[in-house]
Amino acid sequence: MLGQRAAAVGRFWKHKRHFNSLACTGSEYSREDHEQSYYKYAYIAGAAAVGMLGVQQFMRTAKLDHAKEEKNLKKLANLPMYAQEEVKKHGKDADRIWVTYKDGVYDVTDFISMHPGGDKILLAAGAAVDPFWALYSQHKTAEVLEILEGYRIGRLDVKDVPKAEPDAFSNDPERHPALLVRNAKPFNAESPPSLLTDHFYTPNELFFVRNHLPVPDVFRKKGDNRNNTNVLQIKTEDHRLTIETMNGKTIDLSVDELKKKYKSYTIGSVIQCAGNRRADMNQYKKVQGLMWEGTAISNAEWTGVRLRDILADAGIDVFDEKIKHVHFEGCDVDPTGTPYGASIPMEKARGNEVIVAYHMNGVDIPRDHGAPLRVIVPGNVGARQVKWLRKIIVSEKESDTFSPAVNIGDELKWDTVPSIQEYPVQCAICTPAPNTKVDRDDGTVDISGYAWSGGGRGIIRIEISVDGGETWSSCEMEQEEKQDKEHMYAWTLFRTEVKIPPGVKEFNIIAKAVDRSYNTQPETASGIWNVRGLIHNAWHRVPIIVKD
Amino acid sequence: MLGQRAAAVGRFWKHKRHFNSLACTGSEYSREDHEQSYYKYAYIAGAAAVGMLGVQQFMRTAKLDHAKEEKNLKKLANLPMYAQEEVKKHGKDADRIWVTYKDGVYDVTDFISMHPGGDKILLAAGAAVDPFWALYSQHKTAEVLEILEGYRIGRLDVKDVPKAEPDAFSNDPERHPALLVRNAKPFNAESPPSLLTDHFYTPNELFFVRNHLPVPDVFRKKGDNRNNTNVLQIKTEDHRLTIETMNGKTIDLSVDELKKKYKSYTIGSVIQCAGNRRADMNQYKKVQGLMWEGTAISNAEWTGVRLRDILADAGIDVFDEKIKHVHFEGCDVDPTGTPYGASIPMEKARGNEVIVAYHMNGVDIPRDHGAPLRVIVPGNVGARQVKWLRKIIVSEKESDTFSPAVNIGDELKWDTVPSIQEYPVQCAICTPAPNTKVDRDDGTVDISGYAWSGGGRGIIRIEISVDGGETWSSCEMEQEEKQDKEHMYAWTLFRTEVKIPPGVKEFNIIAKAVDRSYNTQPETASGIWNVRGLIHNAWHRVPIIVKD
Repeated sequence: MLGQRAAAVGRFWKHKRHFNSLACTGSEYSREDHEQSYYKYAYIAGAAAVGMLGVQQFMRTAKLDHAKEEKNLKKLANLPMYAQEEVKKHGKDADRIWVTYKDGVYDVTDFISMHPGGDKILLAAGAAVDPFWALYSQHKTAEVLEILEGYRIGRLDVKDVPKAEPDAFSNDPERHPALLVRNAKPFNAESPPSLLTDHFYTPNELFFVRNHLPVPDVFRKKGDNRNNTNVLQIKTEDHRLTIETMNGKTIDLSVDELKKKYKSYTIGSVIQCAGNRRADMNQYKKVQGLMWEGTAISNAEWTGVRLRDILADAGIDVFDEKIKHVHFEGCDVDPTGTPYGASIPMEKARGNEVIVAYHMNGVDIPRDHGAPLRVIVPGNVGARQVKWLRKIIVSEKESDTFSPAVNIGDELKWDTVPSIQEYPVQCAICTPAPNTKVDRDDGTVDISGYAWSGGGRGIIRIEISVDGGETWSSCEMEQEEKQDKEHMYAWTLFRTEVKIPPGVKEFNIIAKAVDRSYNTQPETASGIWNVRGLIHNAWHRVPIIVKD
Repeated sequence: MLGQRAAAVGRFWKHKRHFNSLACTGSEYSREDHEQSYYKYAYIAGAAAVGMLGVQQFMRTAKLDHAKEEKNLKKLANLPMYAQEEVKKHGKDADRIWVTYKDGVYDVTDFISMHPGGDKILLAAGAAVDPFWALYSQHKTAEVLEILEGYRIGRLDVKDVPKAEPDAFSNDPERHPALLVRNAKPFNAESPPSLLTDHFYTPNELFFVRNHLPVPDVFRKKGDNRNNTNVLQIKTEDHRLTIETMNGKTIDLSVDELKKKYKSYTIGSVIQCAGNRRADMNQYKKVQGLMWEGTAISNAEWTGVRLRDILADAGIDVFDEKIKHVHFEGCDVDPTGTPYGASIPMEKARGNEVIVAYHMNGVDIPRDHGAPLRVIVPGNVGARQVKWLRKIIVSEKESDTFSPAVNIGDELKWDTVPSIQEYPVQCAICTPAPNTKVDRDDGTVDISGYAWSGGGRGIIRIEISVDGGETWSSCEMEQEEKQDKEHMYAWTLFRTEVKIPPGVKEFNIIAKAVDRSYNTQPETASGIWNVRGLIHNAWHRVPIIVKD
């Protein structure tokens, strides 16, 4: 029985993050960009179909018509009352699976295969879904509650109804009002494009935020005993960074020890979400995930110590060919205690540029950005740059990460979807905003934006077209002088002005960039479209309206 | 006077290679892809205008109408005869510049500024152009001779007429008849696409050839005393590789010493000309250069010794931050004795993958491919992989290379055109050939081709569309198992079959690839077009005709 349970739980965990990511079209809490997961197995197990088709299907079939609804209300009054003890018997190994929500009891057995989040629902089998919904608040919509009511079998004994959970996000930090919030809980927000190009290094307050869970509570003061079990409570002075070697040896360091022990380095480096410009790809054809516009990217100067130095100090031979990957774990843990994690190849990890940072633009890293320690992996996608870093593990294997860019209708070929590490060349206009109205009499329009490419490949040219790509003109570029074109991890800002084309009422400003390896961007999403809306780097187009 | 001359010569050499490359639209001898040069200065000096506009202009203005021609013929009979002594007085520092060709004497003073090859013409000032035209045979057209006659001022004394030059290319090796010759002298030929994908490693006989000059005569037997001054005569057993350090120290090695002294490595690596698929870009908008189709690329297994080991042995600290570039010189020298050369960054040069090779696919490197030694720079453009290697020099500076991808009409921003080192992601269909007729009854079409990207970025996916890019399907890929996706220098071959779309008389097969950094290809040349037709990597389209 125990074995059976373990297997079920094992199976469950293989699926959970996957379903998390495919839960809803336009999901508010998708974690798809950024995680260590078991996507491959989940996908192969047919979860894709559930995730992508299941939502629509159950929305259609489960929607109750008015007559049915009235009937249900009558039925509800006559439903039996159950004690928590009884509910508990209908756990994940039972024939019929029950859950409770507030004072409702539901038999969800027939719903499990339709759950957009897959059998993650089993986490609450025989118990309350309330603590989970506290974290994944997208459940709290009229539509979802209506569906749930379709599975109602009774009421919960009032003495067993869970007390309202404290909001796991209530201890999140204050944020700058200029941030463009794409999701409140967990907090995901873009930098304001109108301010972004004013600063070569993005002020910390305006740096885009990509959180998967409540912000770990690293600044709690002594004596503050709020008991929020969903947030790991650590004090900066108590924070420890642990390094695990292949032969099981472990060392750990306080933040102060880390600062004193190793030489510090400062590097300008971009962090960009793999989902940046997803909304743009969604215009081409519907995709799933948080609808980032074009500023899920920022640039900061990070100060910290070389990862290589820490590894060497832990007795790890960074040229040991057995070690393929270095894994990172954050303090942000989900309700089951699983931390956010990611890995990078050892070859990258031993490079000059990879640091464990404690300063962001010259001050302690703010809570939203990984206080007290964050690994900075210049040239790689944001997902690898684990915040609230608490553990480093060297391994023969890559973190089981999934970053597909797979076209619908195509067979899934798993060897064709390695994890995203380095990023391709990207470029976007920040100002003017789309649909800005300009006076023809002004003659010209001022343009600003950013460009960046992964792997340290500096931007060598940025070009603008106002005639649909027929002709192009180069932009003035602002770059980090300390970085050469082969090791350019900071971004390139650009500014230029273009003449308003004669005789048109509207036109598109198009921007594109070229990186040091002469990589360029595709014209549209047609060759790069993928259902998860990742790595959209087609030419950026901003429509402008001309007032005569 | 001497100072003046030196300055003039210096100025001259700053221009020469530039003009060489821009000499003719559709030039048969353009060196634009592959060289160490002084393009920047030349371009800035306005040479671009001469190169690009001059050709057309002088073609228009210098073309003689019939009446004028008759008049000229009469004039010719009455022209004076000059001795070589007299011609010599009209050298490059004279007021009027004369040259001779065969028995003609020409005052070319007024032509110099229109010469597509720039003041390279001054090389022959006061003397015969014959030895130069022997190398640059594109002069020998009716049109050019006609223009020259327009400048005729006399006849050369018969005793001074140069003897016919031995053809500098007469000692070039035999070639396989399947090679598709794009230029005979110097020899430039593509691999036959119909055979290319039959072999993961291209047989040496079918490997594409990109020569700038006659093939150095490394296999000359003792006692063979042909006196061809345009070809460096070396015997393999006498060949020396010289390494020059920054402090002037020089070591040199015979091929045998090199083989014995250092450990040997074998690596599969592509060589691709920067002009590959130029003809395809020319379809989008006219470009200049040798009209390579899609197979100026091949893949071989190279065996040699690590460049790093040689440098270290010469006492060079490969981590010395003062050393920025490693330069290579070939044995192929132009009529002035200037060797072909190129450089790569020291960071690349000290990598595991860069070798000085002596074997190509298991046998001595054939003459056309650099016998006896060629530097192999995996992941970089062909131009850096200097053949007939005779000298290695470490330097603070990059070889003055120019590899623009500049749009016409745009201001030239020199910091935006660094040399091409790594190559962006490339993909092309080899079979079927364009305009192949297929039977609808066959139902499907078999497709094969190659994909490759620079910097060791392996190909992770190749996709085919037959509906203009609306939908895509993945291809089966053949790759070098010894290379991982982060260090993949060999190419990827692909094979697939597609269904013939119903109800069409013709359709395009489109192929595109994605590399390990998720770089993709642009849809068309519209964002990458450049006057030199370099690095064309837009989606490859092959039109197919359907027979019902």
